[in-house]
Amino acid sequence: MASSQINVKEQAKKAQIAGKALSILSTNDKNEALLIIADELEKNYSFLLNENQKDLDKGKEKNFDSAFMDRLLLTKERVNDFANGLREVVKLKDPTSEIVSEWTLENGLKVKNVRVPLGVIGMIYEARPNVTVDATGLALKSGNAIILKGGSSALSSNKAIVSVIHEALNKTKIPVDAVQFIASTDRKATEQLFTLKQYIDVLIPRGGGSLIETVVTKATIPVLETGVGNVHIYIDKEADVEKALNIIINAKTDRPAVCNALETVLIQKDWFMNHKDLLISKLNEYNISVHGDKEAVKMIPGSVEAVEKDWAEEYLSLDLAVKLVNDIQEAITHIEKYGTKHSEAIITENQNIAEQFLQEVDAAAVYHNASTRFTDGSALGYGAEIGISTQKLHARGPMGLPALTTTKLQISGNGQIR
Amino acid sequence: MASSQINVKEQAKKAQIAGKALSILSTNDKNEALLIIADELEKNYSFLLNENQKDLDKGKEKNFDSAFMDRLLLTKERVNDFANGLREVVKLKDPTSEIVSEWTLENGLKVKNVRVPLGVIGMIYEARPNVTVDATGLALKSGNAIILKGGSSALSSNKAIVSVIHEALNKTKIPVDAVQFIASTDRKATEQLFTLKQYIDVLIPRGGGSLIETVVTKATIPVLETGVGNVHIYIDKEADVEKALNIIINAKTDRPAVCNALETVLIQKDWFMNHKDLLISKLNEYNISVHGDKEAVKMIPGSVEAVEKDWAEEYLSLDLAVKLVNDIQEAITHIEKYGTKHSEAIITENQNIAEQFLQEVDAAAVYHNASTRFTDGSALGYGAEIGISTQKLHARGPMGLPALTTTKLQISGNGQIR
Repeated sequence: MASSQINVKEQAKKAQIAGKALSILSTNDKNEALLIIADELEKNYSFLLNENQKDLDKGKEKNFDSAFMDRLLLTKERVNDFANGLREVVKLKDPTSEIVSEWTLENGLKVKNVRVPLGVIGMIYEARPNVTVDATGLALKSGNAIILKGGSSALSSNKAIVSVIHEALNKTKIPVDAVQFIASTDRKATEQLFTLKQYIDVLIPRGGGSLIETVVTKATIPVLETGVGNVHIYIDKEADVEKALNIIINAKTDRPAVCNALETVLIQKDWFMNHKDLLISKLNEYNISVHGDKEAVKMIPGSVEAVEKDWAEEYLSLDLAVKLVNDIQEAITHIEKYGTKHSEAIITENQNIAEQFLQEVDAAAVYHNASTRFTDGSALGYGAEIGISTQKLHARGPMGLPALTTTKLQISGNGQIR
Repeated sequence: MASSQINVKEQAKKAQIAGKALSILSTNDKNEALLIIADELEKNYSFLLNENQKDLDKGKEKNFDSAFMDRLLLTKERVNDFANGLREVVKLKDPTSEIVSEWTLENGLKVKNVRVPLGVIGMIYEARPNVTVDATGLALKSGNAIILKGGSSALSSNKAIVSVIHEALNKTKIPVDAVQFIASTDRKATEQLFTLKQYIDVLIPRGGGSLIETVVTKATIPVLETGVGNVHIYIDKEADVEKALNIIINAKTDRPAVCNALETVLIQKDWFMNHKDLLISKLNEYNISVHGDKEAVKMIPGSVEAVEKDWAEEYLSLDLAVKLVNDIQEAITHIEKYGTKHSEAIITENQNIAEQFLQEVDAAAVYHNASTRFTDGSALGYGAEIGISTQKLHARGPMGLPALTTTKLQISGNGQIR
């Protein structure tokens, strides 16, 4: 334990020193490095797949479920996707070249507010090897060093990926130390990251609610909180039937396991009474399991009665909570109580009601007549994203490259005093 | 203790509800309210001064030092200053009316990124009654509710100020509950604020290092860290003598107790040898007590030898640490080790050396040939400030009204699914 303590701290120190060298490299130097990493990953796919097999074997022993095993799995195609992801990052604008604003004071002082890298990013995530590559690409492009701590079930895969990245970095101007990997499976090693404020500028936890909660509670370093989405759609009295049904089905079934997927639908009672047959047949067609409130459960065949935790839960499956409400006010009150301020939608043809919803609901993204599945960096045109922030400070919603930067005031004078 | 627990939580809940109502008020409604508060403060100055006397009496009993007593003191003139400060805030642009960006996706979705209030701000500060008024003004103008927890030594003064604010709010559209004051002197009451994440969106600690450290370590709510400034000025070999001396004296003596005041001067050895007589006579003239490194202490009459803690300390007095260095690299390394990333300056006529310093030194504000005293919202043209952020996330340097807002994506469609 004492040795892992020294280790993590030493890694963080090295990352900080490397980050300083990286922070002043040109955009070209950084892009070239990303392209070399992409090529090396593709060249080494069979090594990566071999190492991945070790994790898969252990996962099988531990009887992980199929969704988990699928996220863990590497294939040649997926390795190519990693590489192409990096090539996409190369195309994104380098945020650190930007002068945010510039002005001259009456006393002649010239003030320039410039965008600069954060320094060192600590990335804590679950057993998804793709995050190892994605996060590294975004960190390096924005001039930041990164410390990676992936889920222990993907240890061999991540180790292999990082070894290829390190080999590649040897051929570039980016110091190898700019990418640090915590190879320990000891929880204590992760927790050491939480307080290394002297070396790490921000922690980004990416994964389930309990991982994020642990980091937020224990860290003294600033945290960029990502992603738990208890997403609601409110079907207003004046909702168009086709739009409502299409959006419910899309938001629930397109990718049920992601954070912008629908979890609870709030339906205005009159609308429900008028359209329940169509709604029920659609829900059946897509194998959606309904957890209904007291009234709904009586009218929806095969549904079970929702208990308190159904309203708060992120199912991440084909389960759907259904609550009948009298009006938009009841819907908003429910969302305020149970929502996680991620993505919330209203379906209505009434523009005033829509405006009220867009203004009053407090979330990273609020929608009128569209699927909540669009809360995503690439879908919204931001390019790649490091995660979706559900906090209000620094960055809210999908976080692209600018979220990995800060600003600095550069002030030039000729002897001004106050 | 149980009762204070319920109390603080209830106050936070009320603030949240009031904040929602406040968040949708017009700029005019908010400005009118601030003007009424300003008038009421002026009208009630004798009540405020009476209540302030209770704090002053207690402070005398406790033998607080004269600087502390001065910060605590209210006078008719100071109350007028509070009111005029609010009238200045009225003139500032309302940040919440701003559309940050707007675009249409290929699928026809219209995306609007709008600036909205954070919600509820928790302000934790020391015995400075002016913060009660300043912070309230900035919070209300930006559409936020505020929970105030001031230092116990100013309890009677703060209570009185808040009672006048509440009276005034009764005549406005802003709910009285939008300004909550924690009247308890129990430390436990303050600590409850740290974890009321459901109701409070951000904590802003303003005061000395230990107050800030406590909040950062114990809070699970995001914190906007303000202000400890261990400020350095590096006098380069090619520094102009007059600029260097003027800036050292200004940055050290103009207001020694503030965070942008100079604490350590790093002097290139050749420059020091050439100009030490002038420098020493200036330092003497302004009663500056020098803590010099091994070399400097031998050459500066009346100086004492600096120990390790001198390099890390924020003196906030007429003490000054002096270290002789060989070159800019040694200066930067020293700043990296001991600096608090607040304000750092270089004095030189060499443009390349200046550029290197501005680029490589990591701080909220970096200066070339100017006094560090300009790191201040009003001096830089931001208008009033809620504090100076020394963190990198969300806001860096002086924080004006926009730092008290977040953004929200409002997305409108006609049935788009993914």
